Amino acid sequence: MKLKIKDMDIATGGPLVAVLNIKDAIKFDIHHLDRIKINKGKRVETVVANIAESSKVVPEGRIGVYEEVIDSLNLKKNDKVSIALARKPLSIDFIRKKLDGKTLNRKEIDQIVWDIVHNKLSDSELTFFVAACYTNLMSINETIMLTKAMVNHGDKLKLDKYPVIDKHSIGGIPGNRTTMVLVPIIAAAGLTMPKTSSRSITSPAGTADAMEVLAKVSFPISRMKEIIAKTNACIVWGGSLNLAPADDKIIGVEKTLGIDAESQLLASIMAKKYSVSSTHILIDIPIGNGSKVKNRQEALKLKKLFDEVGKRLRKHVSVIITDGKQPIGNGIGPALEARDVLWILRRDKRRPPDLEKKCIAMAGELFKMAGIKDSKGKAEEILDSGKAYKKMKEIIKAQDGKIFDPEDIKIGRFKFDVKSAKKGIVKKIDNKIIARLARVAGAPADNGAGIYLHKHINDKTTKGEKIFTIYSENKLKLKFAREELEKSPGVVVIK
Amino acid sequence: MKLKIKDMDIATGGPLVAVLNIKDAIKFDIHHLDRIKINKGKRVETVVANIAESSKVVPEGRIGVYEEVIDSLNLKKNDKVSIALARKPLSIDFIRKKLDGKTLNRKEIDQIVWDIVHNKLSDSELTFFVAACYTNLMSINETIMLTKAMVNHGDKLKLDKYPVIDKHSIGGIPGNRTTMVLVPIIAAAGLTMPKTSSRSITSPAGTADAMEVLAKVSFPISRMKEIIAKTNACIVWGGSLNLAPADDKIIGVEKTLGIDAESQLLASIMAKKYSVSSTHILIDIPIGNGSKVKNRQEALKLKKLFDEVGKRLRKHVSVIITDGKQPIGNGIGPALEARDVLWILRRDKRRPPDLEKKCIAMAGELFKMAGIKDSKGKAEEILDSGKAYKKMKEIIKAQDGKIFDPEDIKIGRFKFDVKSAKKGIVKKIDNKIIARLARVAGAPADNGAGIYLHKHINDKTTKGEKIFTIYSENKLKLKFAREELEKSPGVVVIK
Repeated sequence: MKLKIKDMDIATGGPLVAVLNIKDAIKFDIHHLDRIKINKGKRVETVVANIAESSKVVPEGRIGVYEEVIDSLNLKKNDKVSIALARKPLSIDFIRKKLDGKTLNRKEIDQIVWDIVHNKLSDSELTFFVAACYTNLMSINETIMLTKAMVNHGDKLKLDKYPVIDKHSIGGIPGNRTTMVLVPIIAAAGLTMPKTSSRSITSPAGTADAMEVLAKVSFPISRMKEIIAKTNACIVWGGSLNLAPADDKIIGVEKTLGIDAESQLLASIMAKKYSVSSTHILIDIPIGNGSKVKNRQEALKLKKLFDEVGKRLRKHVSVIITDGKQPIGNGIGPALEARDVLWILRRDKRRPPDLEKKCIAMAGELFKMAGIKDSKGKAEEILDSGKAYKKMKEIIKAQDGKIFDPEDIKIGRFKFDVKSAKKGIVKKIDNKIIARLARVAGAPADNGAGIYLHKHINDKTTKGEKIFTIYSENKLKLKFAREELEKSPGVVVIK
Repeated sequence: MKLKIKDMDIATGGPLVAVLNIKDAIKFDIHHLDRIKINKGKRVETVVANIAESSKVVPEGRIGVYEEVIDSLNLKKNDKVSIALARKPLSIDFIRKKLDGKTLNRKEIDQIVWDIVHNKLSDSELTFFVAACYTNLMSINETIMLTKAMVNHGDKLKLDKYPVIDKHSIGGIPGNRTTMVLVPIIAAAGLTMPKTSSRSITSPAGTADAMEVLAKVSFPISRMKEIIAKTNACIVWGGSLNLAPADDKIIGVEKTLGIDAESQLLASIMAKKYSVSSTHILIDIPIGNGSKVKNRQEALKLKKLFDEVGKRLRKHVSVIITDGKQPIGNGIGPALEARDVLWILRRDKRRPPDLEKKCIAMAGELFKMAGIKDSKGKAEEILDSGKAYKKMKEIIKAQDGKIFDPEDIKIGRFKFDVKSAKKGIVKKIDNKIIARLARVAGAPADNGAGIYLHKHINDKTTKGEKIFTIYSENKLKLKFAREELEKSPGVVVIK
């Protein structure tokens, strides 16, 4: 029996789903969430069945198909398809196995990742996998296999270079825009650094957002390769590539509950690095309020795991635990952060010393990993000589950018200065509130919006002196940010 | 800012969901799966936000709403609504708590159940709860609280009677249609038995499917009460009532992975009984191939839990562990099972002795629980005297039925006899294969389809003697069943 298609005119954004009328479902003995095979000519696709009780949704004799299914089977209006009950994906059994606390082998993990990448799992099935890995911790062995499977089932950037440098900062600290300083330093030293970064999800800016103030960040892998061939490096948005795509789907599920399975965090970071052929990887774990890693003990545990996973993957991994108790750099928000970066690279006296210091230390660590002597001195020399700025200009140009001068960066034209109510010393700056204020002011969508810190912890202040400035591109959003500020005592504590 | 609604013209079948265009989402700083509050006049509803990348799905300035949201806010075409970011449901924190292995308190469990019943959780969030309870076992205390919360957040049948009798057989064994024999026996003795049953999901027939061959089974609670007032009892479909609705949603999620959390199984069964005011409950745990409970050890563990939960809920609970290594009764499929039942009640010589024996034992146990002396003798007397059949006729009549005579039941007109290839003794009948054959032949949707067993385990057979007959209402389905039979060696083993 054949069913005529009905275009549901919407995408599920993931799982392949088709909808049957309940009468047809009974005829075919198909139940809600069963798998069905849809045949159209020589094409076959296995999808999840939903059952519609009302013929308004899908009438008898028809099958409702979402965009993903239409694309996969290349369906046209009025097409007829045949259907049959299909087996559930193999990985369902393996997910249950993990949920039962057992250990998965390479083949099983590989099948799960394949099914995730190919949208074969329903939201609920994928969630069971994430929950299983969260409650029944994965072993190092499983984490390694998960990392490799995520890399294999995705695109790769192959580079015939050694060493290939990379870094990752675990999130949660506003500012902390180290990548845009580090990459030109490393590349100016003649080393390769194919850096992919993320956009902000819940923070005021991701590296990709800040870099986008100066240049384009979305490129296919082929263009990424050309940019690296020209400049030794790149600073691009990872989301525009198809690197370890299973990882993005798993992270999406984790976000619904705000959890972060340790094995998943490791596999996620390492898979993205592995996919771009990185050999020497520096991991920065900042600890402090609002940070993903809460305390030193947790950071040390994570460091040990990274060391172990690095060894097993035959990558050189070094982990530094850094101070994340306050924002790093002065600017928070895409444009304000990009300006800080250019000020550092141009040795402008307005440059934020804390961010510069951290970048020099990280560059030094990376040079040391790569076997370069006087590693910290070399990082300083490259910065001071202007070589890093020159390299950054090359990278911006290669990425179709035109902004090289910090004065050309547009900062939001509406602003509000927050001033000290008394003389004293800054004792605390709340990362979470600062991030929220910057977002309410419009960051990252309005890239000129954000916060500029005039003071950091331990700085002295007099009464009436500026502590920070809120910038916005929009009068109303500035008003909202000021209202948010009034609801948030303790954003900066002065004693 | 206001958004004009766009009717998505489809139901999610559960969670309250609205779709924003990505541009509006950025404006409002709303992310995929965030919660948003929708305001229409004085009505407010909190829903899950999905983000549409394409304006084909939802254009800028509009908000796509699914049926559940339209109903809840009573939206009309061209209505405009205002939206705002909302907090996630409280229960998200409690679900994470359980996922982290901690114990939930009454308030937390109650909130989770409330959010489930009111469609406040996404599929993924509900799955995290189910997975959390599966991997981090609930304590007896939590199970009790879950049971009560499921009862409280649903409709109830209040009965001013004592005792109120109930029973539940844990599934997986074909046939086993005890309810339709037990209920008239108990009711004929003057006791109350407000029995709700399920339809088949993956089996050839549920009690509701078999009862529907004789009478109607879908009634509102008010009609159920009238039927009980008239006859002391009823045999209705639980799915037409709103008893412990959270349970059905949880079971739906469990089915995706084929798991069955122990605490959930207990809470599920007890909540349905509690909702109809039952005081004396008999639990039948059959063990054997294809059964939900695999072995005696597992059954004993479950029995202990039922005893404990019963005590804590102040219900009289008795658990029997029964033989489930082969189908019980001869008929498998709605009509064939209903015919077996009427044959037993009418003392017809064709009645299946194994099913009758089991029903008398269970009725005896229930009478004993209710304090009736010579309990087993009483059950036999009620059957033999014809009182049970008379009571069943009353119940069928009260439930708008007209079929009292087994000869009026229509059995599928296409049939195929499976005969013994040799002389010997029946050593094994495979529950799973028998169930599958009955389903392929058309059961339960074609209610005359199924299997009739002429032999049970330990019966002698000669070469060419009928072992079982496959019935179907449809020639093609009979052919499919015969093909399935050929692919299934070992359905009956004769030695």
